[in-house]
Order: sequence, then C-alpha cells, then structure tokens
Amino acid sequence: MASRVAVIGAGPSGLAQLRAFADAGKNGADIPELVCFEKQSDWGGLWNYTWRTGVDAAGDPVHGSMYRHLWSNGPKECLEFADYTFDEHFGKPIPSYPPREILYDYIIGRAQQSDIRRYIQFDTAVRWVSHDPEKDTFSVTVEALKTGETRTEEFDYVIVASGHFSSPHVPDFPGFEQFPGRILHSHDFRDSREFAGQNLLVVGSSYSAEDLALQAKKYGAESVTISYRTAPMGFDWPEGISEVPLLTGVEGNTVHFADGSSRQIDAILLCTGYRHHFPFLEDGLRLRTKNILYPDNLYKGVFWVQNPKLMYLGMQDQYYTFTLFDAEAWYARDYVLGRVTLPSAEEMRRDIAGWRAREEKVSSSVEAVDFQAEHIQDLLADVDYPKFDLDLTREHFRTWLNHKKQTITGYRDFSGFTSPCTGTEAPEHHTPWWEAMDDSAEAFLATGK
Amino acid sequence: MASRVAVIGAGPSGLAQLRAFADAGKNGADIPELVCFEKQSDWGGLWNYTWRTGVDAAGDPVHGSMYRHLWSNGPKECLEFADYTFDEHFGKPIPSYPPREILYDYIIGRAQQSDIRRYIQFDTAVRWVSHDPEKDTFSVTVEALKTGETRTEEFDYVIVASGHFSSPHVPDFPGFEQFPGRILHSHDFRDSREFAGQNLLVVGSSYSAEDLALQAKKYGAESVTISYRTAPMGFDWPEGISEVPLLTGVEGNTVHFADGSSRQIDAILLCTGYRHHFPFLEDGLRLRTKNILYPDNLYKGVFWVQNPKLMYLGMQDQYYTFTLFDAEAWYARDYVLGRVTLPSAEEMRRDIAGWRAREEKVSSSVEAVDFQAEHIQDLLADVDYPKFDLDLTREHFRTWLNHKKQTITGYRDFSGFTSPCTGTEAPEHHTPWWEAMDDSAEAFLATGK
Repeated sequence: MASRVAVIGAGPSGLAQLRAFADAGKNGADIPELVCFEKQSDWGGLWNYTWRTGVDAAGDPVHGSMYRHLWSNGPKECLEFADYTFDEHFGKPIPSYPPREILYDYIIGRAQQSDIRRYIQFDTAVRWVSHDPEKDTFSVTVEALKTGETRTEEFDYVIVASGHFSSPHVPDFPGFEQFPGRILHSHDFRDSREFAGQNLLVVGSSYSAEDLALQAKKYGAESVTISYRTAPMGFDWPEGISEVPLLTGVEGNTVHFADGSSRQIDAILLCTGYRHHFPFLEDGLRLRTKNILYPDNLYKGVFWVQNPKLMYLGMQDQYYTFTLFDAEAWYARDYVLGRVTLPSAEEMRRDIAGWRAREEKVSSSVEAVDFQAEHIQDLLADVDYPKFDLDLTREHFRTWLNHKKQTITGYRDFSGFTSPCTGTEAPEHHTPWWEAMDDSAEAFLATGK
Repeated sequence: MASRVAVIGAGPSGLAQLRAFADAGKNGADIPELVCFEKQSDWGGLWNYTWRTGVDAAGDPVHGSMYRHLWSNGPKECLEFADYTFDEHFGKPIPSYPPREILYDYIIGRAQQSDIRRYIQFDTAVRWVSHDPEKDTFSVTVEALKTGETRTEEFDYVIVASGHFSSPHVPDFPGFEQFPGRILHSHDFRDSREFAGQNLLVVGSSYSAEDLALQAKKYGAESVTISYRTAPMGFDWPEGISEVPLLTGVEGNTVHFADGSSRQIDAILLCTGYRHHFPFLEDGLRLRTKNILYPDNLYKGVFWVQNPKLMYLGMQDQYYTFTLFDAEAWYARDYVLGRVTLPSAEEMRRDIAGWRAREEKVSSSVEAVDFQAEHIQDLLADVDYPKFDLDLTREHFRTWLNHKKQTITGYRDFSGFTSPCTGTEAPEHHTPWWEAMDDSAEAFLATGK
C-alpha cells in the first residue's frame, strides 16, 4: 500500500509541501497519497485576510493575525520562490515592499500553477493526532466543519504546517480587569482606523509593536506610546510615537510605567507575541519551544527526533520566510520519498545541539540572518530546489536593517534591491509608504504617480 | 468497581451536578467517583468575568461572554436555589435585580458550602470524547493546560455541562471586509465605556441586543441603532436608541438597511446569538440544536436518547436558569444512582416528540415561561429537590414582562417580588438602574441612598 501523508494546514508552509511533492510527481516520481487538512474555507493561511476576530464561523479560534493595511516589512527579494519568481507571476518588475494583496496573489499564483488544490480538504479541522507505537502510524481525527462529521484516518507521516503566529501570548497586568477601554492582542488587530483619534498604548518591542505603532499613527491615532520590557527599539519615530519602559499597572484610564511616569490611554494593544500551540497533538508529539531560530528536538529544523515521521515546517523565528519553508518542505519530501536518509537519533541530537550552541552566540540581527541563511543552505545542499543567490539575500537583509535605522517611516521607499533568482532590479514605488493610504493591488501595480 | 462520572464544566450547571451528588452523599448514599473537568482556572463558568477576548491564556477560545456592567435581566426570585436561598447567603433581603458580582457570589457561596471543589480539575480542557460500544464506556482525553500533559481516562457516564452561550454565531454581511471600524460579537463585549461617544450599530433583537444597546447608551454612546431581522423589539427606548430593519450592506462607514435608509456607524456589535458547540465530542455524541425550549434527542431535556449514559445539562433556551439546571442535575444524579429508571428508547422518543409538538404551539413569552415551568415540574416530581413555589415564579415572570413593556430602562427598579422559597419580599434598590453607574457588590448591598 502506498504511504499516506497528512499535511496540517494550507498556508505558505503547507502549500510549499504540496508543491514540493507535485514537482517531484511532475518529474516522474511515485508520490505518496497526500491529504492536506485546512480548517479555513480557502488556502493562504495567515494571508487569507478576514474581518473576524476571536472565533471563526465554525467556532474555532480565528487563524489569521493579518491586518488590513499590512505591507511587507522586509524586501520581497528575500522571500522569493526560486521556482516561481515575481517576474514570472507579475510579468514586470515591482517594488520591494508590496502590500498584503500582492503577496497573497503571489502565494496563490504558485499554488494554482501546481494543481495541488485537489489534495486539500477545506473546512476540515484536525481535532486529535495520536501515534500508535506498534504500527508506527498516526491516527488523525478530523471534523468536517460544514457537516459536523468527525472521522479518524491512519497516516504513515504527519507534517505539521499550522504555523506559529496564530495563538497569541496574552499576559495580564495589574488593573486590566478594571480598565475601561479596549484591550486587544495584535492577533485581533484588523484596521488601523479603529484607533483614529485615540491615545493608544502598544506593549511590546518586536515586529508587531513596530509595525502596528506606525500603522496606528499613519491612520490617525492621536498618540502611540510603546512600552518595552527590556530595551526600546530606538528607531527615529515620527512625532506622536514614543517609547517608555514596561507598564506596571493600570488605574482607570491611567497607565503607570516602570520609570514612574504615567499616561492617559484609551486602548491597549498587546504586541506580546505568539505561542507554538498544538492543542490537537497528544503531548508526546508536541513541539514545545519559544520563538527561536533553531528549536530543540527538530533535526534540520524539521524532523521530530523522537519519531521523524512527524515533521514540522516553519516553526523557526523567521527572517527568511517562504525560502525557509521551501527548503524545509523539499527536505521533508525527500525524506518521505526515500531520497535522503536521516542519521541515528543520537546523531540527530548532536547535530541539533551544535546548532543550538551556535544560536546561543548570535547577538545581532545581522548574525541572526546569517545563521538562518546557513540553516537554509544546509537544507538546500541535499535537495533539487532551484539555485538562487542566497548570499545576495544576506546582503539585502543588511541593507534593509540599515534602511530601518535611517528611517523607520521611509525604509519601504528604497528601491534597487535585485532578485536573487532573476537579477531583476526593483523599481521605486510611486508613493512614499507613509503617505500611501490606498494599499490595493491595483494602486500598487499602477505605474508612476 | 465504582462507576466513574465525568462532568464537563464547572459553571452553574456543572456545580449543580456536583452539589446534587454531594447532597445525596451527605444523606448516606454511596456516590460514584466524580471528576469535573474545567478549562478555566476557577469555577463559575460564564460568571467568572475576564477582560480577555478571543482566546484565553492557554490559547483556547475564551469561555466567558460576561460583560463588566451586567445586571440580572430577570428577577432573582426566578432563579433562586431552593436548597440555598438568597436569605441564607446574604443574611438580609436584597433587591430583585442584582449586578454580576452579587450573583457570582451567590453561586459560589452554594458551591463552597458543599465541599465540591475537590472534584474539580481546573485548567483542564477536554480535547476528545468517544464512546466504546463494546464496553459501553466513554474515553475522555484531556489536557492539563499548565503542563501540556494529555491523557485519556475511561468513564461510565459523561455529563456535558459546558453551556451554550460561549460559541458565538457570527454572520457575515456584504461590506464587512472593508468596514473601517470595529466589528465584534456580543461574546467579546466587555466594557460599555469602550463605545462612549460612538455611533453604535447593534444587530439582533434578543436579550443581548436589548441589554447591550441599553448598556452602551447608559455609559455614553452617542447613538445606538438596533437592526432587526424579523421584527423590532418595540420597547419604549430612551432617546438615542432606535430600531431599523436588517442591514443590507456596508460601504465605508455607511450602513444600509432594508427600508432604504442608511446611517453613519463607528462600530458594529453583532448580537446574533450563540451555537451549541461541542468540538470535543465525536459526532455520534453531539447534540445539534437551535436555541429552543426542548431540544430534540434529549429525554427530559437531559438524556441523550441514543445512549442515556451521556447527559446534557442546561442546553435549553432559558427563562428559568439555575432552577432548571438544578432540576436536571438532580434527575441526572438519580439516574446514575439507580433511583429512577428510564423507559425504552422508543418511549423516550415519543415523550420528546410530545414536548416538541407542544413547543411548536408556544406563541408568546408567557407561554414559553409556562412551558419551561412544566418541564421543571416534570423533573422535580421524581426527585428530592426541596419544595418551593414554582407557580409564584410563573407569576413573577408575567409581572416582569409587563414591567419591561412599561419601561425598559426602569423595569429593574421595581420591588415587591417575593421569594418562592422563603416568602421574603425584595426591597427597592437605593438607585434607579439607569443612573446606577457603580455596580460593585459593596454599592449594591449598601442600605438606603
């Protein structure tokens, strides 16, 4: 009997996995039976924007953390699919920092080209996965959300591609129970205009905090106060955005901070990160990790050491996104196809320990980028993913970091990044990002002002 | 081996079930092993107020739909525990429409008196329940949320007491994807002051719509527009609240209604009801019903006809709340203890069909109250729940309905309801509800103005 592979999730990682198998199939390989379970009604994962917050139409937690006005916060050249370039999809050079709709279109464009939709069962939530040690198979219990039918199927491999930016980490602070305004996590942030005219407190100092503070101000917030735990981001913020130490408590609308200062606040936005959350896996199968570059127990960042027939995609803290998912997906595929073999558990643990030790020494964003590039290089060395100029993307990331230091409201306006796949140079966008209120695909793709 | 009973949920229904067993035990009965699984960190179910929305600290959907300024919307005399009266708990007569804190205190007071906390495993989410037809037992897989440990236990009986006001029914409307303001379901409504100064649209025409429209206006909303599908509620609304037909679509901040009118709206509050939602049950065990007085497939409103060892509590549309839960819990207990026996499946179906046919003929709130009172009477006839004056509560409900027609902002100010258990007459509250901004227990219990 052919082996059966369950892929959990049809976002960028899951789609990369299906693409990888489809590509092998097209080239004559005998591929296993693939079943991808997706709880949403359509593909794209986080990129499948919804106005919904809390729970979705089926009563499950909303997967998406996407907000209406998101633009890429890194150059698109650093996430280009080597087997489906921006040039191929758009038919012309486009600027380096596209808005949400453009990136969604690009992801879906590749998926459509691969004829992989037939593998996906939409509106199907995975409820429970357990492993039978005797048969060395996985039982996957799913619910067809439209009918409520539940069933259990057996699989030889399970690939978890459900992401790790869906389940918010939501800390409590003294006085939250009595705060008279809205308290929300960035997971529930949808439209920046909801905060127009308000004095917004943003808690956190990572990418969500940075971008949502800018978003809120751009779309009319009266002021944005960013509260950090360890250190300020220190960008040259525009007027109306400022950073203060951690909040210590809330009394009515007054928020107190660790430096003794206080401010009047209308709404509190917790940009406090996400958790690796797999409520559908029995605990022996469950990855437990913080958001780091090389989570423990995953050989090559993919294979569950205790049982490599269980794989995880995209579970790393990410500079590289789609590129990393592709490299992992191609490697996972080749393991399933028997094209690569894995060493003993002991050797895998030793290898992971080496990477973990190296990550411990990473002390800057530049080093983190390099670390992740080397991880990708390590994966790509063994698989047939198309060649591209990975070193060039490392340079691009350095340039991007410098641009952000120069101007946090203007870094998205730089042109001149070249594609690591085609060499195409990105043109300038017609409107500075800080003034570009229309983020539709149509407006972005329009040429000139 | 003693039988094992799983109770899912430690809210008012689950606590009633534990109380019922504890009461039998106190009176000398040999009671089974009880394990109550509660995903929250404390008891009280919906009454356990949280500022959180979306998912909880463990990443599970937030159970609570409670809002900060909730006051009882019916006279407390109609939900009094006959075995633990308001007089016994508070030591003095209190007005008929207490705020949230007072009712929470009352629920917890009884629970504490019963020494039932030891049966409850807090921070424990039920992940999957299946039935083994050969052994006629239930496998219950749970996760200890603090450790992530998952395990599966066998039970002879499962009593589902997880409520049905936790999983929102959230419809979509044309234009929601582009609406620039907040869209939320009443499940996520927390503090009325979040809408101060705003023009709020409330969609729906049941209890949530009625009470949240009033709440929002009371705490400073600029205007509240209520949009109904079938018919307006028709109360004598205060200035600034009005009813219009169903919304047909949204363009920017403009909301259009079926009568051709339109309004400028800042935020949209969907009071569109809840769903009976049991994602943790295999489908053969799953109650599927709308919110009605006598759901199909539940004999006596409690016993799953296909297998009465599976029981549900409080799954009805509710006029009576705690009283109904108690009657059901006492009956469920007596079935487990062998004190009552159930007829054949065929007879149970026939009995249910009779009630269903009667419900079809119910055409007013007064008739609905009477129907539910008769359901309660049917349960109480066979069990040892303390006697109380059920007919008096029917009268109270009639009076309440009349008061609401007289004054929707003032119905909570009426006094004179008498306890069906003790005969105690409720005093007047010191402040009219429409002017009572302080809903703390302390303020409510203070005597005089």
